Amino acid sequence: VSAALPQGVELVRVNGEETSAIAALDRGLHYGDGLFETIACVGGVPRLIGLHLKRLAGGCERLKLTADLAALEREVYELARPTARSILKVLVTRGPALARGYGTSGAEKATRITLRYAWSEDPALAREGVRVRMAKVCLGENPALAGLKHLNRLEQVLARAEWGDPEIAEALMLSSGGALISGTMSNVFLVHGGGLRTPRLDRCGVAGVMREAVLQAASAAGIAAEECVLNAEDLARAEEIFLTNALIGIRPVRELAGRTLPAGTLTPRLQELLAPLLAAPGGLAGMNG
Amino acid sequence: VSAALPQGVELVRVNGEETSAIAALDRGLHYGDGLFETIACVGGVPRLIGLHLKRLAGGCERLKLTADLAALEREVYELARPTARSILKVLVTRGPALARGYGTSGAEKATRITLRYAWSEDPALAREGVRVRMAKVCLGENPALAGLKHLNRLEQVLARAEWGDPEIAEALMLSSGGALISGTMSNVFLVHGGGLRTPRLDRCGVAGVMREAVLQAASAAGIAAEECVLNAEDLARAEEIFLTNALIGIRPVRELAGRTLPAGTLTPRLQELLAPLLAAPGGLAGMNG
Repeated sequence: VSAALPQGVELVRVNGEETSAIAALDRGLHYGDGLFETIACVGGVPRLIGLHLKRLAGGCERLKLTADLAALEREVYELARPTARSILKVLVTRGPALARGYGTSGAEKATRITLRYAWSEDPALAREGVRVRMAKVCLGENPALAGLKHLNRLEQVLARAEWGDPEIAEALMLSSGGALISGTMSNVFLVHGGGLRTPRLDRCGVAGVMREAVLQAASAAGIAAEECVLNAEDLARAEEIFLTNALIGIRPVRELAGRTLPAGTLTPRLQELLAPLLAAPGGLAGMNG
Repeated sequence: VSAALPQGVELVRVNGEETSAIAALDRGLHYGDGLFETIACVGGVPRLIGLHLKRLAGGCERLKLTADLAALEREVYELARPTARSILKVLVTRGPALARGYGTSGAEKATRITLRYAWSEDPALAREGVRVRMAKVCLGENPALAGLKHLNRLEQVLARAEWGDPEIAEALMLSSGGALISGTMSNVFLVHGGGLRTPRLDRCGVAGVMREAVLQAASAAGIAAEECVLNAEDLARAEEIFLTNALIGIRPVRELAGRTLPAGTLTPRLQELLAPLLAAPGGLAGMNG
């Protein structure tokens, strides 16, 4: 537990204290009973913090998990400050179990874990695009969990274990019902007829903050954008495809399962629209807290 | 982390050492990337240990998780020995993350966590039966995870949070496709026309060790038993219903969502058949290691 931190990890805190240990009885470990956020920090400030905190607060409400989000926000700003670029991962769990079994008493005290990682993303990929495959593992459908960035992530672990080729950046996942949902660690947008389409996330998937930022930016720029039920055929017909997440922003897909995709026009236009938001704090109203 | 253990917890070990802390970077916490077993210990011996170890080994294989199961078995016997009755919970995770993200390198070192709890089950319920409700939360379908006792258990946490009445012992859960699957912490059997039926677990659910023991005992006694796709109508038509898990053995359902069920004949007969297995080590060949 007290071993040196692995490469790339700069700092770990549990409930505000620098430590690399959490309670073995934590419900986050036993059940995945918690939520997380992965936040890009740029210029010493957490990017899209407003959207991250909004999603986390919504997740806490849905899981009936009481956490001190004001303390969390203060800590995020504090940890972001010292470095020009970093990645903050924040986990909030229901805390140590007070009894055996799934039941809760409501007296549980949430655990807050913050980890700061060195920046790892290659900005060149935003221009060059990435190669993507289709995952074999599907995503189970559960409206009660859909959209949440919770700690039950075995489906993503299994999907990511399907390939080792470092030239492949991501895999797209379908639901058990055959609907296109997302990448293992990103949301997906299709361009069709000059408009944007992205999967509805009311049965599974994570409602990404960058997905939200893209939808808001498209709306503000008068670009048609729709959340809808999509499938593998829609993917095959898409004129452009791009991925989003809090760290990578917008990343064009230049190859999907062997099919080459064009650089396109709407993807670079959206990248331009989002550039002010991604380069530094400020940008679109409300998103940066 | 070093706080006193909560009521009912006698002992916690991580990788064989008595401690109440695990690494904050453990993939069990971040992704639920691991498995668990809950083992009843009777007369100082872990009950159904053969079935527990077989399921755990199968789960490790499916998740490509390399763990020292021989060391785990030794520790389980050691922890079971001092007390007449106890509950052992064993978790095996993929260990501390070596890098950020879902990907694995294969160099991860599994974490083994063992917890011993005081015995908590009331034997009178095996005669009296229990009251059961229907859960509103469903179980997502994923063949890649079906049957495994993995650490992604938010669906069970949410289902258990639907009721507070201590007179209700369990809730039955349907899959997102409407099939009857299991309780939140138990498997379910229906009696119909003198035979047994229990849900197939190839799309979701946990393949319980007591479920397996019941199927084997029924087979040995010439009682028809079938694993099949069942739904709410099958439940409504069932003549007897009972729940199973490693701790409770066979527990009759005397009331389901307001409907009273008879004591029945096959349920007590199966309880008798399993009694030697549950009372003490020995019993059906192979199940106790």
